Amino acid sequence: MPDLARCVAEAYQTALPHRGQGKVADYIPALAGVDPDRFGFALALPDGTVHTAGDADEAFSIQSVSKVFTLALALRRVGSSLWDSVGREPSGSAFNSIVQLESEQGVPRNPFINAGAIATTDRLIDGRSADEAVDEIVAFMRARAGDASVAIDTGVAGSENDTGARNRSLSYFMDAFGTLRHPVETVLSVYFRQCALSMSCRQLAQAGLFLAFEGRDPRTGEQLLDPHRARRINAIMMLCGHYDNSGEFAFRVGLPGKSGVGGGILCIAPGQGSIAVWSPGLNEAGTSLVGALALEHFAYAAGWSVFD
Amino acid sequence: MPDLARCVAEAYQTALPHRGQGKVADYIPALAGVDPDRFGFALALPDGTVHTAGDADEAFSIQSVSKVFTLALALRRVGSSLWDSVGREPSGSAFNSIVQLESEQGVPRNPFINAGAIATTDRLIDGRSADEAVDEIVAFMRARAGDASVAIDTGVAGSENDTGARNRSLSYFMDAFGTLRHPVETVLSVYFRQCALSMSCRQLAQAGLFLAFEGRDPRTGEQLLDPHRARRINAIMMLCGHYDNSGEFAFRVGLPGKSGVGGGILCIAPGQGSIAVWSPGLNEAGTSLVGALALEHFAYAAGWSVFD
Amino acid sequence: MPDLARCVAEAYQTALPHRGQGKVADYIPALAGVDPDRFGFALALPDGTVHTAGDADEAFSIQSVSKVFTLALALRRVGSSLWDSVGREPSGSAFNSIVQLESEQGVPRNPFINAGAIATTDRLIDGRSADEAVDEIVAFMRARAGDASVAIDTGVAGSENDTGARNRSLSYFMDAFGTLRHPVETVLSVYFRQCALSMSCRQLAQAGLFLAFEGRDPRTGEQLLDPHRARRINAIMMLCGHYDNSGEFAFRVGLPGKSGVGGGILCIAPGQGSIAVWSPGLNEAGTSLVGALALEHFAYAAGWSVFD
Amino acid sequence: MPDLARCVAEAYQTALPHRGQGKVADYIPALAGVDPDRFGFALALPDGTVHTAGDADEAFSIQSVSKVFTLALALRRVGSSLWDSVGREPSGSAFNSIVQLESEQGVPRNPFINAGAIATTDRLIDGRSADEAVDEIVAFMRARAGDASVAIDTGVAGSENDTGARNRSLSYFMDAFGTLRHPVETVLSVYFRQCALSMSCRQLAQAGLFLAFEGRDPRTGEQLLDPHRARRINAIMMLCGHYDNSGEFAFRVGLPGKSGVGGGILCIAPGQGSIAVWSPGLNEAGTSLVGALALEHFAYAAGWSVFD
Repeated sequence: MPDLARCVAEAYQTALPHRGQGKVADYIPALAGVDPDRFGFALALPDGTVHTAGDADEAFSIQSVSKVFTLALALRRVGSSLWDSVGREPSGSAFNSIVQLESEQGVPRNPFINAGAIATTDRLIDGRSADEAVDEIVAFMRARAGDASVAIDTGVAGSENDTGARNRSLSYFMDAFGTLRHPVETVLSVYFRQCALSMSCRQLAQAGLFLAFEGRDPRTGEQLLDPHRARRINAIMMLCGHYDNSGEFAFRVGLPGKSGVGGGILCIAPGQGSIAVWSPGLNEAGTSLVGALALEHFAYAAGWSVFD
Repeated sequence: MPDLARCVAEAYQTALPHRGQGKVADYIPALAGVDPDRFGFALALPDGTVHTAGDADEAFSIQSVSKVFTLALALRRVGSSLWDSVGREPSGSAFNSIVQLESEQGVPRNPFINAGAIATTDRLIDGRSADEAVDEIVAFMRARAGDASVAIDTGVAGSENDTGARNRSLSYFMDAFGTLRHPVETVLSVYFRQCALSMSCRQLAQAGLFLAFEGRDPRTGEQLLDPHRARRINAIMMLCGHYDNSGEFAFRVGLPGKSGVGGGILCIAPGQGSIAVWSPGLNEAGTSLVGALALEHFAYAAGWSVFD
Repeated sequence: MPDLARCVAEAYQTALPHRGQGKVADYIPALAGVDPDRFGFALALPDGTVHTAGDADEAFSIQSVSKVFTLALALRRVGSSLWDSVGREPSGSAFNSIVQLESEQGVPRNPFINAGAIATTDRLIDGRSADEAVDEIVAFMRARAGDASVAIDTGVAGSENDTGARNRSLSYFMDAFGTLRHPVETVLSVYFRQCALSMSCRQLAQAGLFLAFEGRDPRTGEQLLDPHRARRINAIMMLCGHYDNSGEFAFRVGLPGKSGVGGGILCIAPGQGSIAVWSPGLNEAGTSLVGALALEHFAYAAGWSVFD
Repeated sequence: MPDLARCVAEAYQTALPHRGQGKVADYIPALAGVDPDRFGFALALPDGTVHTAGDADEAFSIQSVSKVFTLALALRRVGSSLWDSVGREPSGSAFNSIVQLESEQGVPRNPFINAGAIATTDRLIDGRSADEAVDEIVAFMRARAGDASVAIDTGVAGSENDTGARNRSLSYFMDAFGTLRHPVETVLSVYFRQCALSMSCRQLAQAGLFLAFEGRDPRTGEQLLDPHRARRINAIMMLCGHYDNSGEFAFRVGLPGKSGVGGGILCIAPGQGSIAVWSPGLNEAGTSLVGALALEHFAYAAGWSVFD
C-alpha cells in the first residue's frame, strides 16, 4: 500500500519545474488572464481525507470537466434513452469537429466532444427551464464537493456566450436533424453556464468520488447513480476524455480522466479515489501539460494505472 | 478472491444459449465453413494454470488478434521509432477505412486498424525477408503458447491474399506517402500469414500472459518487453481493440481486448491473467457476439473490470 | 435561325405529359401547398420579346434562383474582394453540406451552395442594415423584370426563418471562422427574404437577360455589371448551378442554369436570351423535373447547347 | 469573323513573356527533364487547316489529356453501361483523392479524376488483352492526328508504373468494391501507357476535332461517336477537366478543356475547332500556367468563350 500523501507530494514536485509551460487558453479574456504559474493537486479518498499540494484551494474554470457531471445527471434523469441523442464511441476528431455529425445524421459520437455534451445537456434539461437545470447542476456540485461556495462565474459564462459561434453551429446542426428537444438558446444557456463552474482542485476531487465507488458517495453511503452507469462514465472518460489525445493520456496515466481548457483535469481511480489537478498551460491537444505530467507521476507512484 | 474456475464455468454457461447467434465471416471460404456453434473459453493464470470451457482446445484462425503480438514484436525490434509509422489514437472509423489516411498523409491512426497493422508489420520486418519475419512471429507464438504445434494455416493465408484488394489498396496508399519501408507485396506476404495463425483458446490465452504482467512471462520470469511497452499495448487494446465498437466493449467488459474476424477475442487483465474466447458468430462490429457476452459475465463475476 | 416561338411551344408540349412527376418541396407549408401541376415557360429575347407557354405569368417562390442575382449585386458592390469570402469551384457535395467548410476553414466552395450564398449575401450587405440590402435586391429585381409588382412573400420568408436550423448552423460555422462581416441574424434576415422572392417565369426570364449580354441590359443598353463578371457568373452557373447534379444538367441542357427548390430554373443562353421555367415537382437532386425536361428540349430545338 | 491565324499569333505572343513560370512536374525523371521554356500552340480547323505557333511540332507526354480519348473509345465500345463504373459529376477534390471513393462505394465521381480514368480504361479493355486495348488507342490517335508517328514513350510508361503506388491504391480500392472487371495490373498496364502517349500540339489539336463537330471528323465526314456522346464528353471537360481548378478555367477560357501534368491542354470549341497548347510549367492546380494564359487570350480574341 503506497503512502498516498507522499505520492501526491512527489507528483507535485516532479511536475513543478514544468510550471508555466504550455499555452493558456485565450479565446475569452477571463481565461487568458489566468496566471500560467498556478498549479494545484488534490486527491480525495473514500474516508473523506483529501491530500493536496500547491494551489489546490484556488478556484478555476472547470470548463469541459463539467461534462462528466452533466453526463451523470442526464443518465440519472433520463436513463438509457440518453443514447438516442448521443453515442458512446471515440470520435477520432477534434473536440469541435462537425464532420461526423453530418455523416451520422446529427447524433454526436460521444458525450465529451462539444456536440455530444450539448446533446447531453439538452436531455438533462428534460422539459425544465434553463435556470432550473442550472440550479440542479450547481446544487449537485455543491453537495458533491461538500462546499456551498461552488458557483458559476457569470463573467466567464457571458464570454462563452459571446464567443460561442462554433457551439451555436453545432447546436443548430443537431437541431436541423431533430436531435435537440429544447430550443438551441435554452440548451446553450445551460451549457455555457455549466462550463463556467468555478471550483478548486479540492472541491473537484471530492465531487468525483462517487464515480470511483460504483456511483455511491463513499463518505455518506448515498447511491447517486446506478453502478453500471458509473462504469459507463468511467469507460467513456478513458476512451474519449481528451478528444484526439485520449490514447496518449490512457497510456501515460492509465486512468479515466477528463480535461478542461481552463487547465483542470479530473481523474477517477476506481475503487481508490478521485484526483483533480489544475495548471493553465495546455499541450497541443488542449490538456493541461503540467497537470498531465503530475497525474502520470502520481499514477505510477501509487501503482494505480489500470494497464500495468 | 473469486473462485476463478467457477467464474469461467459460469461465464461459459451464461453465454452458451446464445451460441450460433451473429454472422460468421464469409469473405473467404475457410472462414465461412467454420461451425457457428463452436464456443471455447480459456483463462491463463500466472502460475501456469489454465481454466477452460467448451472448445478451448480447438484451433481457429486468430486473424486480427495477431495484431497484438506483431505490435509487441515490432516495438521490441524498432522501439519508439515505430510511432513514426503509425499513431496511437482511436480512429473513430471502420477497420478498413482509408479516409483518415488521406488527411493524415499516409500515417494510420493506430496499430489495430488494418492500415496500422500493415504499417506495424512493415516495421517488424526491419530489412529481413518476409519468411524470416514470419518465422519470428511463429516462433514467438509457439514459445508464448508453450506449444510447438502453433502454425499458420496456409489455405487461409492464400485466401486472404486472393481477396486482399482492400488491404492492397491501403498498403499502396501508404507506399505512395512513403510510410512503408518494404515492398507492398513483401509486407502483405507477412501480414496475410500472421492473420492466418491457427491457435486454440488455451494457446492464445497463454500467449497473452506477458501483457498482463508488465511484459514479463510470469511462468518463466523472462522479460519479453519493457513494462511501459506492455502498458502501451494494453492502453491501445482498450481504446482501439474493437474498431468503432471499442467504447461498448470497454463498458461491457472493462478490460483491454482485441477481436478477430475469426471469432476470437484476447483479453488482458493486468496483474491477473489473460483470457481467450472463441465463437464464430460476429456482431455488427465484427466482434464475436457470444465471446463478448462470455467476457462480460466473466469480468463481472471476477470483479476484474477496471472501471468499477 | 430557329423559330424560337415554336421551340418554346414544342418544349412545353414535350414536357407537359410529365407534369406532376417529381416531389414537391415540403419543408415549409407555403411550398408544400403549391399545385404540382403548375408548369410555366418563358423565353426573353434582347429585343424585348418574351415567348411564353403555360403558367408563365403565375408567381412562384424563386428560392435559390435568387443566388444568381445577389451574386451579381455583391460583385457589383464589393468587386473581386468577394472572393475572400467564397470560392468559385464545384463542391462535389450536397447544397447544405458542412463538411468542406471545416477542412477549408470556413470559406465555402462557391456562391450557390447555401453556405456560399449566405457568405455572398453577407458581403452584399456591406455595412448597411438588413432592410436596406433587401430593398436593393427588390428594386433590382423589379427593374430587371420591368415590373414593380415583384415582391417578397413574407409568409415564405417567415417559414424559412422558422425552419432555418441548418442554414443557421452553416452561418455560425462561418462566423466562428471569421468569414462573416455582419451578425448571423442580420445576414439570415436578408438571405431568407431573398429566397422568398415571388416572381413569374416572364419576370424571371427578363430579369436574367443582362447575364446573356455581357452584363448589359439589351433592351436599355444599361451596363449593369462588368462583362467579365457576367461571364464569371455564367461559368459558376454552368459548373455549380445544380449542386451535385450540375454535370447532368450541363450535358442535357448545355446552358448555365440555376435551380430553386420552389421548382424554378433560370437558364442563360449567352448572346441569345434568357429562359425561366417553373414546375414544382423536383428530381432527386432538387431540380424541377419537368422544367429540366423542357429546357433540354428547348436547347436542342434551338441549337443553343454550348457543347454541340 | 475573327482572323484566327492572327488570334493564334497574338495569344502566343501575349503568353510568351510568362514562359518558364510555374513548376515542371518532377515525379518521374522523364517529365522533370523537359525544358521549361518550351511553348507550343496549335489550332485545328474543320477544313484541315492548322494554325500553329512556337514549339507546335515537338512531341510531349500528353498524360491526362489521354483521358478524353479513352473516354470516347470506352463510350463507343460499351455505350451507356460505362456509367455503371463511373459518375459524371465534379468531384470537388484533388485528382488523386480516395476519400469520395469510400463513401461512394468504389464508383469514382467522373472519368477525369485518376480513379475514374482507370475505371474508364477498365471498360475500354472489354475483355481484350492490355496490348490489344493499347493498340486500339494508338491506332485511334494516329488516325485522328493523321500521323502514323504518334507513339507511346515506353520510358515514361515504365516510370509511371514504377511510381504508380497512388494509382495502384485507387485501383485496388475499386477492385475491392467490384468496380473493375479486369485484374488491376492489366488495367494499369493500359492506363500507364495511354498516359505516356507522346504527341505534338499539331497532332493533338487535330485529334480533338471530332469532339468539336458532334462526333464527326469534319475533314472526312466520318462519324466516330454519337453526337450526344460528344456533347457528354464536352460537358464533362467543362465541369471536370481541371480537377479542383475547373471553375477558374471555365471562367478564364470558357471552353471545355483537359489538362495534363506534362503541360499539355486540349480545348474544344464546339462548332469551331480544336486547340492544343503545351508548356511544361504548371500552376498550383497542375495545369500549364502559360498554356492557360494563351488559351484565355485566344478565346477572348476569337470570341469563342461560351459564357459571353
